Amino acid sequence: MSTDHDEQARRERALTDRVLASFSGTEDDRLRELMCSLTEHLHAFIREVRLTQDEWAKAIGFLTAVGHITDDRRQEFILLSDVLGASMQTVTVNNEAVAGETEATVFGPFFVDDAPEVERGGDISGGARGQPCWVEGRVTDVAGRPVPGARIEVWEADDDGFYDVQYADGRVAARGHLHTDEHGGYRFWALTPTPYPIPHDGPVGGLLRATGRSPMRAAHLHFMVSAAGMRTLVTHIFVRGDDLLEQDAVFGVRDSLVEDFVEQPAGTPTPDGRDLGDRTWARARFDIVLAPGTP
Amino acid sequence: MSTDHDEQARRERALTDRVLASFSGTEDDRLRELMCSLTEHLHAFIREVRLTQDEWAKAIGFLTAVGHITDDRRQEFILLSDVLGASMQTVTVNNEAVAGETEATVFGPFFVDDAPEVERGGDISGGARGQPCWVEGRVTDVAGRPVPGARIEVWEADDDGFYDVQYADGRVAARGHLHTDEHGGYRFWALTPTPYPIPHDGPVGGLLRATGRSPMRAAHLHFMVSAAGMRTLVTHIFVRGDDLLEQDAVFGVRDSLVEDFVEQPAGTPTPDGRDLGDRTWARARFDIVLAPGTP
Repeated sequence: MSTDHDEQARRERALTDRVLASFSGTEDDRLRELMCSLTEHLHAFIREVRLTQDEWAKAIGFLTAVGHITDDRRQEFILLSDVLGASMQTVTVNNEAVAGETEATVFGPFFVDDAPEVERGGDISGGARGQPCWVEGRVTDVAGRPVPGARIEVWEADDDGFYDVQYADGRVAARGHLHTDEHGGYRFWALTPTPYPIPHDGPVGGLLRATGRSPMRAAHLHFMVSAAGMRTLVTHIFVRGDDLLEQDAVFGVRDSLVEDFVEQPAGTPTPDGRDLGDRTWARARFDIVLAPGTP
Repeated sequence: MSTDHDEQARRERALTDRVLASFSGTEDDRLRELMCSLTEHLHAFIREVRLTQDEWAKAIGFLTAVGHITDDRRQEFILLSDVLGASMQTVTVNNEAVAGETEATVFGPFFVDDAPEVERGGDISGGARGQPCWVEGRVTDVAGRPVPGARIEVWEADDDGFYDVQYADGRVAARGHLHTDEHGGYRFWALTPTPYPIPHDGPVGGLLRATGRSPMRAAHLHFMVSAAGMRTLVTHIFVRGDDLLEQDAVFGVRDSLVEDFVEQPAGTPTPDGRDLGDRTWARARFDIVLAPGTP
């Protein structure tokens, strides 16, 4: 006995239509729009892949495990959104392309509101381990006009791949904020970024293993730049030559955000005369173009 | 400064393509197919609705709440799948239409494996409260040939809207199994089904309220019918005239599964001579057509 394909297609479509109709009484127009689009895509997914009952049950079990490992300190649903590129797609639709503005990327979970202010040319490392790295650049608008007084927040992992907030000792390190000068210029000492894995001992890590994917994030330095009349930019810069650029676990890399981090032999004079003794150091330049908008 | 729509569309598509490419190393072909389709639909949803960061954060918070209320006794993810019609769509794609077979519907969480056997004509109520209801019918294949010896499992809520397993006292009631006779016939006493709500004191209940939907399930009696050489049928029958037929919270209703439950005045002689004293009772007929397949 073979399938009656017309009747089968009719049943599948009729069910989707019935679910869509159930949201017709939703008072909030936006919520109705969200639920209807979600329903269409969720049902289309099930129909297209001919999801089996066993696969459905495995999906329920997976989501349950994601829910149970999530607590105040660990957000496995965000991690799941990240590794499916959903976080990055949300960033993309919320930072629409204008002309020549610096691209945004994922915010990540490690920003804190009250990072210390440093002078221009100061050091944000706060004693964190890593190779010293001089970072400088200029903030302009899309017409090339300097943006003085822009607030720049920067944060990064240390050489062991951990942010300060991942340590239990309450340290504040490898983060800070500063402001651009009257020419839009900025400069600070940080650490040359190093790669690190996202937490991969939970169900999301299991998904990465099952799909042959790496849990590593390409090395990066976080920026958040805000100024009056400008759209706030949340982004990273990445290290040219990093093997992980093509396989960043959360799809945060944009070609336009890959910068040269030029290593300097020990003894090379530093831009500000800082004496680094026998240590090597690096330097990078990141010119930032802000889109117009509201902070 | 207006959006560069071409560049924006290119970025959004390029991101989706990058996520799809990340699954190219998945060894399990089926898992790769599932992840790629999921990625396409998840990204298309975000792009279509222009999901805001705030909405994304609310979605993460909602899923987190669903995860945290889920435990060994309560499965809020299944409930979520149910109210989005995803459970019913999965049932639909796994029970493809043939010619004239009885349609399937959702399994639900209340089946138990070891329900007692009752004689044909026996009573499955096990003392549960409710109006006695005589249910009879015939099991055939799609050519109309009787299926003798088919196993029929039936289960239902009591008059208070609860299944036996929802009580803490370990009772076994309103469930049982029996077999068809040599003509494919079956008959048993049950209870006239009554409507009941799905659990709606959690995040899924909140979603139903926000979208103006009812948490009620239309009144129903569960069936699972299996026989050699036949596709196992998991279904319900519903009560013609029930106000909830058009708004069943989990979209389980099929027009073909709505049956007449004909109320009988007190004193009406019963089919098997059972004396019900001054109680009213009801009767329903459900002829079942099994598709060919494997149990």
